[in-house]
Amino acid sequence: MNIVLLSGGSGKRLWPLSNDVRSKQFIKIFKVEDGSYASMLQIVYSKIRKADPDARITIATSKSQVSAINNQLDDKVGISIEPCRRDTFPAIALATAYLTDALGISEEESVVVCPVDPYVDDDYFEALKKLGELSDRGEANLVLMGIEPTYPSEKYGYIIPETKDAVSRVRTFKEKPDFLKAQEYISQGALWNGGVFAYKLKYVLERAHQLIDFTDYWDLYGKYETLNKISFDYAVVEKEENIQVMRFHGEWKDLGTWNTLTEAMTEPSIGNAILATTCKNVHVINELNIPILAMGLSDVVISASPDGILISDKQQSSYIKPYVDGIDQQVMFAEKSWGSFRVIDVEKESLTIKVTLNPGHRMNYHSHDHRDEVWVVISGEGTTLVDGMEQQVRAGDVITMQAGCRHTVIARTELKLIEVQLGREISVHDKKKYAME
Amino acid sequence: MNIVLLSGGSGKRLWPLSNDVRSKQFIKIFKVEDGSYASMLQIVYSKIRKADPDARITIATSKSQVSAINNQLDDKVGISIEPCRRDTFPAIALATAYLTDALGISEEESVVVCPVDPYVDDDYFEALKKLGELSDRGEANLVLMGIEPTYPSEKYGYIIPETKDAVSRVRTFKEKPDFLKAQEYISQGALWNGGVFAYKLKYVLERAHQLIDFTDYWDLYGKYETLNKISFDYAVVEKEENIQVMRFHGEWKDLGTWNTLTEAMTEPSIGNAILATTCKNVHVINELNIPILAMGLSDVVISASPDGILISDKQQSSYIKPYVDGIDQQVMFAEKSWGSFRVIDVEKESLTIKVTLNPGHRMNYHSHDHRDEVWVVISGEGTTLVDGMEQQVRAGDVITMQAGCRHTVIARTELKLIEVQLGREISVHDKKKYAME
Repeated sequence: MNIVLLSGGSGKRLWPLSNDVRSKQFIKIFKVEDGSYASMLQIVYSKIRKADPDARITIATSKSQVSAINNQLDDKVGISIEPCRRDTFPAIALATAYLTDALGISEEESVVVCPVDPYVDDDYFEALKKLGELSDRGEANLVLMGIEPTYPSEKYGYIIPETKDAVSRVRTFKEKPDFLKAQEYISQGALWNGGVFAYKLKYVLERAHQLIDFTDYWDLYGKYETLNKISFDYAVVEKEENIQVMRFHGEWKDLGTWNTLTEAMTEPSIGNAILATTCKNVHVINELNIPILAMGLSDVVISASPDGILISDKQQSSYIKPYVDGIDQQVMFAEKSWGSFRVIDVEKESLTIKVTLNPGHRMNYHSHDHRDEVWVVISGEGTTLVDGMEQQVRAGDVITMQAGCRHTVIARTELKLIEVQLGREISVHDKKKYAME
Repeated sequence: MNIVLLSGGSGKRLWPLSNDVRSKQFIKIFKVEDGSYASMLQIVYSKIRKADPDARITIATSKSQVSAINNQLDDKVGISIEPCRRDTFPAIALATAYLTDALGISEEESVVVCPVDPYVDDDYFEALKKLGELSDRGEANLVLMGIEPTYPSEKYGYIIPETKDAVSRVRTFKEKPDFLKAQEYISQGALWNGGVFAYKLKYVLERAHQLIDFTDYWDLYGKYETLNKISFDYAVVEKEENIQVMRFHGEWKDLGTWNTLTEAMTEPSIGNAILATTCKNVHVINELNIPILAMGLSDVVISASPDGILISDKQQSSYIKPYVDGIDQQVMFAEKSWGSFRVIDVEKESLTIKVTLNPGHRMNYHSHDHRDEVWVVISGEGTTLVDGMEQQVRAGDVITMQAGCRHTVIARTELKLIEVQLGREISVHDKKKYAME
């Protein structure tokens, strides 16, 4: 099976765990067998591998997520990087060209496309396989998954099938309806459109060449910024006559709000939390290293990260966005290709961060115009390079760097350091990168 | 007026703002005229000064609170330090001997004794003055303040006066009753006993000499640890026939729980907090530098400090103690005589703190056996002393100290530094102090 997972942009609806640089699919909130926690991305990835050990999995995403994906998944995953956001049709066209041109997969093969962040049972992954097999048979140009509705949702588009068979031709599509319309559709046997579908690579390539003037994947990548924003539904699905839908009646949840996310949690709390016996239906996710004590609360979600603390009635949590839009908080934690950093102190003319480098990794060789820096290595071993001078370092070593000086550190083992930045104009934009000398 | 403020021990009922080293009377939560925040101690102190500019104010407290008191009050305050906790009779006897022997006040003068942490209006302080004047007249050995009850509280002892006059002799005392008994007392004209009273110094000194074998203040201080724990009520009040009570009918609140404390707040939030319009009767006190967002909550208190985060139904908040007792959290923030420190990062073999030194102050000259330390000065100017070597330092300077080396820093201006502690056995107990060379 070829599969493309669409990894969407950062959202604010799961603040403070998601922000400009962290997306919900990377948050580790699901307890797995060995007692550790996994992200939605990791769970979906491992379940696809389990359903089909030979699956070729490609993630279609933006540049900003590549580090997080590499940190969370093994190196068998392919990544189709969108140079910028251009809606689903360009993204799927680019991923399709990536499969044929970069990975060399035959145009005759099928691919299954689905979002990276559904909360589903194992039978969902079996259904993905079946969807690919249906596409292989070639009875239709597109095969969609139609999810049997459990309530008249206003959040999804609907698919009206011709028959009630497990696989049927599609009669028509309906856009997100209001509640009464949704009831009506369901009484007509309508299914939710969860954005899961399969096609033969050559089919989408043909449509792409009709709409975009390009030669191959690399050409498409190069002109990606010039493409129009257009959805796959509008560009392809709505214009296609020959579509099948395959019913799916397993569990399928959208984890886009705190309310639905906490429903999927297997335990009431993650992290350092104490829930008094007077709490009812309270969920806590605490990424901070200080305890949270909750007493006498009902139907409340509490979430704390280096970016902030949310305490919300679960139903109310879906109205979070305007409040978070109003918060002007610098990024306090971020995963990078080489590890992660966390802001631990902010003063007017200094900023102190903790940097964790993964073994074998290094940060970019860089300099700052307007700040001095001091590194205090607190654990691990590695090599610093400062204006071309190498030095072996380990816990207790101190490196001072004046503004303008080029510097990096290469971790031999996992290496942690405290970085104190000093200056009147400390900014993430004050950074010049260099090739290693 | 002579006045002794009894400053009680650290309580856990206002966790996370009070802990082993911070008591509720030092928490700055009351907005004052210039827009800044003041503690209960500061408010009570300044209001006494306003009611009587010549008041001689002494605070009876334990050693651990002396730094906080000096940081919050001016140097006109006297402090009677209890070497250890020995209940109210030894504490009041010690403070009384301190007034006569250490401050040289005549035994014929009166003193007013009251808790440091009532939440009261200005007329309370006028009443304190009257209490002292009544004692001066010498019609009784003890003059108590009797607070007119506003509800049948089970939390206070009751005073039954002989008449309904503004000043009356006391008929009898009643211990904390149940609700029905409280109703009965109130129908008999009973008053709350708020632990506020006045006496002539010689009176308590006589009682003290009857019960304790001591010569003067310094002798009493020296043998304080050997004294029995005994309350002032038991040792003095219950055995005294000649007592007056003065009625007080102004506002008088005990701020011992989050529920009552938030009632006294003039604004719904202090610190970085956003309350959605769907919140009702929600109070937030946020000492952290990250935002708190509250949505759809009712009758909830949220309090965040470097020690932890509390989210509680207001009524339920009075049951906090057993939960906090179960939290084994190192002290993350503390005020010291020289300034304050805050833990900003904890790792297995390192601890990073931010130290703030007040202008003109210094930490103790000290060494550690089992850890190295690095200081990075982030603001201000001062002098470091390391194994006898002096160095002028300012922002950007780095000082490294091996285990065993003696060190201190003296602040010229306010000075802040990041201290990285490195070692396998980092403990607050690993500290040797030295005289300055």
